Amino acid sequence: MSTIAAISTAPGVGGIAVIRVSGPEALSVCATIFKPKKLDVSFLEQEANTISFGNIIDGKNELVDEVLVAVFRAPHSFTGEDVVEISCHGSVFIQQRILQLLIENGCALARAGEFTQRAFLNGKMDLSQAEAVADLIASTSAASHRMALTQMRGGFSNELVKLRTQLLNFVSLIELELDFSEEDVEFANRSQLSQLAANAEDVIVSLSESFRVGNALKNGIPVALVGETNVGKSTLLNLLLNEEKAIVSDIHGTTRDVIEDSVVLRGITFRFIDTAGIRDTRDKIESLGIERTYQKIEQAAIVLWVLDCTQLSEHIEWLTERIQKRAEGKKVILVFNKIDKIAEDERDVLSHLFDQFDGERIYISAKKRLNTDVLENALVQAAQLPEINPGDVVVNNVRHYEALQQALVSIRRVTEGLESGISGDFLSQDIRECLHAIGEITGHISTDEILGNIFSKFCIGK
Amino acid sequence: MSTIAAISTAPGVGGIAVIRVSGPEALSVCATIFKPKKLDVSFLEQEANTISFGNIIDGKNELVDEVLVAVFRAPHSFTGEDVVEISCHGSVFIQQRILQLLIENGCALARAGEFTQRAFLNGKMDLSQAEAVADLIASTSAASHRMALTQMRGGFSNELVKLRTQLLNFVSLIELELDFSEEDVEFANRSQLSQLAANAEDVIVSLSESFRVGNALKNGIPVALVGETNVGKSTLLNLLLNEEKAIVSDIHGTTRDVIEDSVVLRGITFRFIDTAGIRDTRDKIESLGIERTYQKIEQAAIVLWVLDCTQLSEHIEWLTERIQKRAEGKKVILVFNKIDKIAEDERDVLSHLFDQFDGERIYISAKKRLNTDVLENALVQAAQLPEINPGDVVVNNVRHYEALQQALVSIRRVTEGLESGISGDFLSQDIRECLHAIGEITGHISTDEILGNIFSKFCIGK
Repeated sequence: MSTIAAISTAPGVGGIAVIRVSGPEALSVCATIFKPKKLDVSFLEQEANTISFGNIIDGKNELVDEVLVAVFRAPHSFTGEDVVEISCHGSVFIQQRILQLLIENGCALARAGEFTQRAFLNGKMDLSQAEAVADLIASTSAASHRMALTQMRGGFSNELVKLRTQLLNFVSLIELELDFSEEDVEFANRSQLSQLAANAEDVIVSLSESFRVGNALKNGIPVALVGETNVGKSTLLNLLLNEEKAIVSDIHGTTRDVIEDSVVLRGITFRFIDTAGIRDTRDKIESLGIERTYQKIEQAAIVLWVLDCTQLSEHIEWLTERIQKRAEGKKVILVFNKIDKIAEDERDVLSHLFDQFDGERIYISAKKRLNTDVLENALVQAAQLPEINPGDVVVNNVRHYEALQQALVSIRRVTEGLESGISGDFLSQDIRECLHAIGEITGHISTDEILGNIFSKFCIGK
Repeated sequence: MSTIAAISTAPGVGGIAVIRVSGPEALSVCATIFKPKKLDVSFLEQEANTISFGNIIDGKNELVDEVLVAVFRAPHSFTGEDVVEISCHGSVFIQQRILQLLIENGCALARAGEFTQRAFLNGKMDLSQAEAVADLIASTSAASHRMALTQMRGGFSNELVKLRTQLLNFVSLIELELDFSEEDVEFANRSQLSQLAANAEDVIVSLSESFRVGNALKNGIPVALVGETNVGKSTLLNLLLNEEKAIVSDIHGTTRDVIEDSVVLRGITFRFIDTAGIRDTRDKIESLGIERTYQKIEQAAIVLWVLDCTQLSEHIEWLTERIQKRAEGKKVILVFNKIDKIAEDERDVLSHLFDQFDGERIYISAKKRLNTDVLENALVQAAQLPEINPGDVVVNNVRHYEALQQALVSIRRVTEGLESGISGDFLSQDIRECLHAIGEITGHISTDEILGNIFSKFCIGK
């Protein structure tokens, strides 16, 4: 195994920067460039989990920096290998120079995620935990941070371990039966097996279902902004995003391309999808652009249907009906914009026009920033996300979700197989497939392991 | 003294980030939010220079992150106070959350440079060393890095300490004399004092003179690019800067504003000053723009006088003469551009046109990138910077330079006073002024100190 090195802190100039070295030669490579101030103990003998102060020197014995060096020893380190962390002054020049010296003295430049990969390879964490480390670092909201933390600490893994244990028991019994097939023994009680499969299915279904929430929390809840041209969709989007991403203009149909951007409101990430304005021209109403808007509606969880208070199109009822139809099963919020330009009593008139419409109504002025807090409230409420509590296991990774879907197909085949009374080897194969899918999540699976499980548990001595 | 906290690594997302806490309550504040995994020793008892692994939790006992926490104890820390460094996962969310928790639990947000300031206040380093920490972090070239490092390690301070010791001896003798003035004793041999003053002056002059080099290394050597419009100055500048800062165009006089940018060539920083092209129209030749170009020439150490091989202006000799006059004492390099467009033998013709000119000639094509290495060589040579060796003391700070200039004025007054035989109290005052100027550099000076020096050394017991 090579020894790897990389700058682990954020790129750029800081007060300090940390360069991490991991691998069997971590200490010996660092010993060539680091000279501790205290000479009573050699650096190679530096105790684990301690820090020493000293100089980084180059090949010409020239001082590069005064640094603090922390030593961690295998297996009690993040990667499970010997690890050295060098805290240097945070100039880019110094960071690069020290990294260069480490490379010159035998380190390989670490690939992205390689420290975490080594932590996985060395059994410090499973694959789903390793993946959560990246999620944790990328998390920008309290909810996504909480999910990643639970997953990194093995919340998800524990669920999967329980599931695997059940399935391994299951397959062990089946395969034991196969070994003694000539003797026509039935080790595995079929109704117990059915119960086991049903339990497993419940767990997999429940994990899969958490993906809706997990994905929304991780990637943001998709919110489509739809409406006719020039009703103020882009101004509203800018207001929500607090910046000038969408081009605002008075020319009809400015927003040609779909712009996506995210914002965190009260800890929930919303991913806004701006759409090309629906033009109020009957002949074009079913044009390609409108069709794309409809598609965007289908991708969204929440639809903001923006209307201009001052000029409702003559086709507005017809349009609203169509949009409502396309948005079935989604939260639709009617947003009456430019409310500052109409009298108070006109609101009721407007509202009555939409008596058929069962969604919420919000009255705002995007330009004057009126009632935007009401809109935020409505969005947060519409998100309908259950509160994620610390420790709640929530699947938020597409790879995991897909593996769970595969596992679900397999476990359902097992249940069907038990009902139709298929032979043990087919059952065994389906359970193996289910285990394989779960093993893909954790990175655990191997057939040796299944064998190991049989013999260790039953110890028949054959 | 308050306990301060700040994120010490570069801003943004990284693999890890470090939050530093310093002050008398550093451990107790951290103890409220940090729960070590190993419970055998309380965090408050954690040994100095060791690291422990554990959890950061918030007021609701919710996990914020898994972290490594390093403890340093006063006075053996960077600031000289108790210091705790928290290494967390490098998401901005986590960094901010931990900092917020520290503030909630009684830390003050550290001001810029406050850790280093405390190091100074606690006597871990003097003022010039503290200033070098900032220089070190900002250094972008090998030379500026080397200077800052020498200064941070006290190279400059040692010179100043030697100087101060001499001057303190000096003033002690004078002031002792004043104490015994009724008795008409002369403790201080006047010719020895003259020698001492001359020595001090030599040291101050030599340090002051190093500022030319120090400043050039720190801020870059100013290089003015001058020439008529459309000779390719901007293309050349872009080539040297390796990016598209200056607008290149074929329209005469594009570069209206003076553009400055720096580039490091062979470890030396050059600061390029582009100038508005000199227009070849007699009536405008002394216009305001040209006057500004002349001013830029005066600010530069090196002048690149760029010429278009393919079309030399009819006034070129007259212009060259004027530029040479303005650039007296500076290195002027004649840069013949667009060399790819003329025949080999035409070079000699060109060269003969400038027989009067005693500067170097370089033939390049900025557009075709021909001979740019020759130009780089010429620049590096023209820089005429002595090699800075590790440990060389070089003044590179304007504040220090100005203080040295003040010290020089004072010490010269001392020499003059000794020659003209002025009284001891005037001499004493001039030396005090000199000491004060030097004390401004190191942050040391106080009159108590001068007194202390008298009594500790002479111990007369009065």
